[in-house]
Amino acid sequence: MKFYDCAIAPNPRRARIFLAEKGISLPMIEVDILKGENLTPAYLAINPRGLLPTLELDDGTRFDEVMAICRYFERIQPSPPLLGRNAKEIAMVESRQRKMEFDGMIGGSEVFRNQHPDFAQRSLPGAGGEVIPAIPGLVERGTQSIARFFKWLEIYLGEGEFVAGDIFTMADITALCAVDFVAWVKFSIPPENTRTQAWYAKVATRPSASA
Amino acid sequence: MKFYDCAIAPNPRRARIFLAEKGISLPMIEVDILKGENLTPAYLAINPRGLLPTLELDDGTRFDEVMAICRYFERIQPSPPLLGRNAKEIAMVESRQRKMEFDGMIGGSEVFRNQHPDFAQRSLPGAGGEVIPAIPGLVERGTQSIARFFKWLEIYLGEGEFVAGDIFTMADITALCAVDFVAWVKFSIPPENTRTQAWYAKVATRPSASA
Repeated sequence: MKFYDCAIAPNPRRARIFLAEKGISLPMIEVDILKGENLTPAYLAINPRGLLPTLELDDGTRFDEVMAICRYFERIQPSPPLLGRNAKEIAMVESRQRKMEFDGMIGGSEVFRNQHPDFAQRSLPGAGGEVIPAIPGLVERGTQSIARFFKWLEIYLGEGEFVAGDIFTMADITALCAVDFVAWVKFSIPPENTRTQAWYAKVATRPSASA
Repeated sequence: MKFYDCAIAPNPRRARIFLAEKGISLPMIEVDILKGENLTPAYLAINPRGLLPTLELDDGTRFDEVMAICRYFERIQPSPPLLGRNAKEIAMVESRQRKMEFDGMIGGSEVFRNQHPDFAQRSLPGAGGEVIPAIPGLVERGTQSIARFFKWLEIYLGEGEFVAGDIFTMADITALCAVDFVAWVKFSIPPENTRTQAWYAKVATRPSASA
């Protein structure tokens, strides 16, 4: 197997933390998104949409999407469970993982890509070489999403020790990566969100967080 | 259990088709998104973000997100499998389901919501009562996403009989709902996409499609 990675990018990090929690190590191939290496002909031959991460199996099958890669490993190595242990937990992890992803990761991406000069022609990931011009209005919409992200993260942490209940799951991984990603565009956990502050201190110091 | 539904909306339809394929019927409570019933105090007490569908379990637990609801039922009633039968299929269904969702459903939503007067103050779903103004530039970006949706759907169908391989899965359900949704904003399967035309004729006539 091979894992096409980008060390600095927030989405590959979600998958790396997931793998580290399961104690799985894979050969990593670095592709630098900031330099646009994901849009070179060489990488587009691997992933025609230019997306990272991509997992390549030993039979040559390749697929992208963080959640697809995580589900693959959850199935072949269920322990420790990171996507829920029963139907209700599975649903809750999926629902909250998505909230953290859409509000935090995608909100952060809207703010970052739509004002950063290097992304002026690629405001949306996954379009391959197609020009997707930046839309300045998305900076404001992304800012609203990030506020929603922090609001809901604090509410979820009032219901359990972790984002989707009483055990650490993928919802925590995505939330952690989103907190660190939105710091790129100068947002941070509001001081009054004390549950989130305490949760962050705990999850950001797990060994997996440095993966 | 209760299923908070909106008969006309494309996302609740994805879950209804999934349930119909499994032969599961649930009490449905209609909430009309077009009339804004999902943003009334009564519904915001059920789902504070105003999202549909929402599933309510007998113990009172509620969760939203189509994929969370589908994963719940896939776990409690695995047959017929709609999210993959082994690790590789599970990953492929997730990856392609997401492509059909992001390009087709979300692309369609960007075109629809950012030009429809009724959505001028709620261009993004899931923000509860918060004002999210329409962004005209998203109509063009959504149009590009819909083109990408049709392009990739045709490519996927060149690799197998269905969107994620040789069996009907959630990736087909999302793609079917996206094709029908983007018709609202006057997009249709390009005539030269013959595999997609044949696939649509087949999936749109399954009994579940009218759910």
